[in-house]
Amino acid sequence: MSAPLAEARGYGITSTEKPTDFSVQSYKLKTPGPRDVTLSIEYCGVCGSDVHTVTGGWGPLSAAFVVPGHEILGFITHVGDDASDEFKLGQRVGVGAQVFSCLDCKRCKTDNEQYCPKMVDTYNASYTDGVLAQGGYASAIRVDKQFVFAVPEALESEKVGPLFCAGATVYSPLVRNDVGPGKRVGIVGIGGLGHLAVQFAKALGANVTVFSHSISKATDAIRLDKFISTADKDFASKFTGDDELDFILITADANALPMGDLMSTLKLHHKAVAVGIPDAHTPWKIPGTAFLGNGSCLGGSHIASKKEIIAMLDLAAEKNVRPWIDQILPMSEAGKAIQGVKDNKVRYRYVLKQDLV
Amino acid sequence: MSAPLAEARGYGITSTEKPTDFSVQSYKLKTPGPRDVTLSIEYCGVCGSDVHTVTGGWGPLSAAFVVPGHEILGFITHVGDDASDEFKLGQRVGVGAQVFSCLDCKRCKTDNEQYCPKMVDTYNASYTDGVLAQGGYASAIRVDKQFVFAVPEALESEKVGPLFCAGATVYSPLVRNDVGPGKRVGIVGIGGLGHLAVQFAKALGANVTVFSHSISKATDAIRLDKFISTADKDFASKFTGDDELDFILITADANALPMGDLMSTLKLHHKAVAVGIPDAHTPWKIPGTAFLGNGSCLGGSHIASKKEIIAMLDLAAEKNVRPWIDQILPMSEAGKAIQGVKDNKVRYRYVLKQDLV
Repeated sequence: MSAPLAEARGYGITSTEKPTDFSVQSYKLKTPGPRDVTLSIEYCGVCGSDVHTVTGGWGPLSAAFVVPGHEILGFITHVGDDASDEFKLGQRVGVGAQVFSCLDCKRCKTDNEQYCPKMVDTYNASYTDGVLAQGGYASAIRVDKQFVFAVPEALESEKVGPLFCAGATVYSPLVRNDVGPGKRVGIVGIGGLGHLAVQFAKALGANVTVFSHSISKATDAIRLDKFISTADKDFASKFTGDDELDFILITADANALPMGDLMSTLKLHHKAVAVGIPDAHTPWKIPGTAFLGNGSCLGGSHIASKKEIIAMLDLAAEKNVRPWIDQILPMSEAGKAIQGVKDNKVRYRYVLKQDLV
Repeated sequence: MSAPLAEARGYGITSTEKPTDFSVQSYKLKTPGPRDVTLSIEYCGVCGSDVHTVTGGWGPLSAAFVVPGHEILGFITHVGDDASDEFKLGQRVGVGAQVFSCLDCKRCKTDNEQYCPKMVDTYNASYTDGVLAQGGYASAIRVDKQFVFAVPEALESEKVGPLFCAGATVYSPLVRNDVGPGKRVGIVGIGGLGHLAVQFAKALGANVTVFSHSISKATDAIRLDKFISTADKDFASKFTGDDELDFILITADANALPMGDLMSTLKLHHKAVAVGIPDAHTPWKIPGTAFLGNGSCLGGSHIASKKEIIAMLDLAAEKNVRPWIDQILPMSEAGKAIQGVKDNKVRYRYVLKQDLV
């Protein structure tokens, strides 16, 4: 086989002071290895993480420029020798928010590679040899096969990208907390993460309660079991005895929520997981009494393992779970998309379409 | 049997503006019921909860005066007809931080009566018939037998009081989170709650790491497996692979701790529980990334069930677990004790000795 592509071009920012000023950057792709898969990118979703990163909310840029994007759909242009068991040239695949783990530690060996201490993020990060990891607002990306996912035929190219980050982020905590038939799950918020969480929780067979500050189109579109307005001061009193929840997934800003009331809707010693990480300067403020009435707890979760992502894609194909796309923009309008997410103008998801090649 | 005592006298405060101004108050004891046990009080420990309550940190007083104290040791002066199966006149018993639950709900019926939605606190609370629940800085108390505990002979009267609240508070989360042989547990802080948590964790057979800002006498006195100074900026790096913790009990102010680093010392998806509830106006501030590296969670716990308190007292007797008492003061010096806890002058526990009778 011919040598893989050496370089890519991507839309990057050079300063967190100018988070919407994208310019075309050329850069070296990951040093090729036998397990690597190289793909030309067709679509990339715009995630809240992209905004936190380009605005500096999670800290400074790790290099002179950063190309965001980790909801990537593309086609394979090169397959390393040790990746040909799984992938073939021209195949339609996705890449999410992780591009490396050691594959050797206890976590990696137990399908928890997203928690590997040596994990590398898809962008604003670098490999051990110093080569930068750059994201999906770009012409191409090269990734270890562990972090490349075959896409079931039923899933449309322009819609599937958000499943690799947003989908993974909500799916893993649902299945790790036994969400399924006979279980009552609360989903808080119904935006970019929440609309997928609700669909997956229903697809998994659970009884789903949505908590939101207001009824939206989404709450009509999905056949919810219960809608709770968090603007109703007495909402927690509606959960007693058999109504108490087995699990809560928080996809909204926890600091805008009455956390004590929310936690009180859980069964004894059950758990809420918050996905969607705030900026570093706005920690979660949790009342000291929030967990007292039922010995509950609040935790976190980090994307999903490959095994979970494969199961998630299959479930999406089977049960018609789809990211809802507000708008598809040309990749050169990345700045407009970032601004739209920042200003809360997007309800669910923007997707960028390739225009560099 | 003669009628039980109708009234008690106790040291109470009348305003959270004057939290150390105790005066003798006379008041009606709980309306007698067949399950009730009446005791004359001999000793009462001084708990952080007493300070939060009398200073208004947890909210306003629920009545014109409040008699604090829920680490009570006394002798039985009256036994209701339906309590004579368990208790007898003159018996040495304790009462902790709870005096009522419905005994009929799912939680009550599964040894979780401390989480009963109808539970009544020992003080700054009232029964459904309007009679006030007043605490242990007093001559006497009457309580349903569910919340009265026989004291093993080996435990000294002047030292046992703190076990009924502080002991229960640390013991329940330890056993509910499987702390025992082969488990690595972290105890954060080594004051009134922490010194008991460390002793109980050792008595349960666990490997114990203490996290504290400085080495103290306590860390010498108890044979710890590991001491971690939270002043060492790199402390979290000492926990990798097999060193990671199974459980953390936080007995110190979470807002004074590097919570992200602390949570990172846990094994994948394991839990920390914070006991010791801050004032209402100082919520816990948790970095959004605190749970991200290992999918951990932070939760709460509320005292202990009767079953757990009995097991805790037996373990204390068997393994020589004891509250460390800084000073025994006459009950009339309650104000001095409150001031001492408020000013952080007490290292472990004050106990008040009866001087009203």
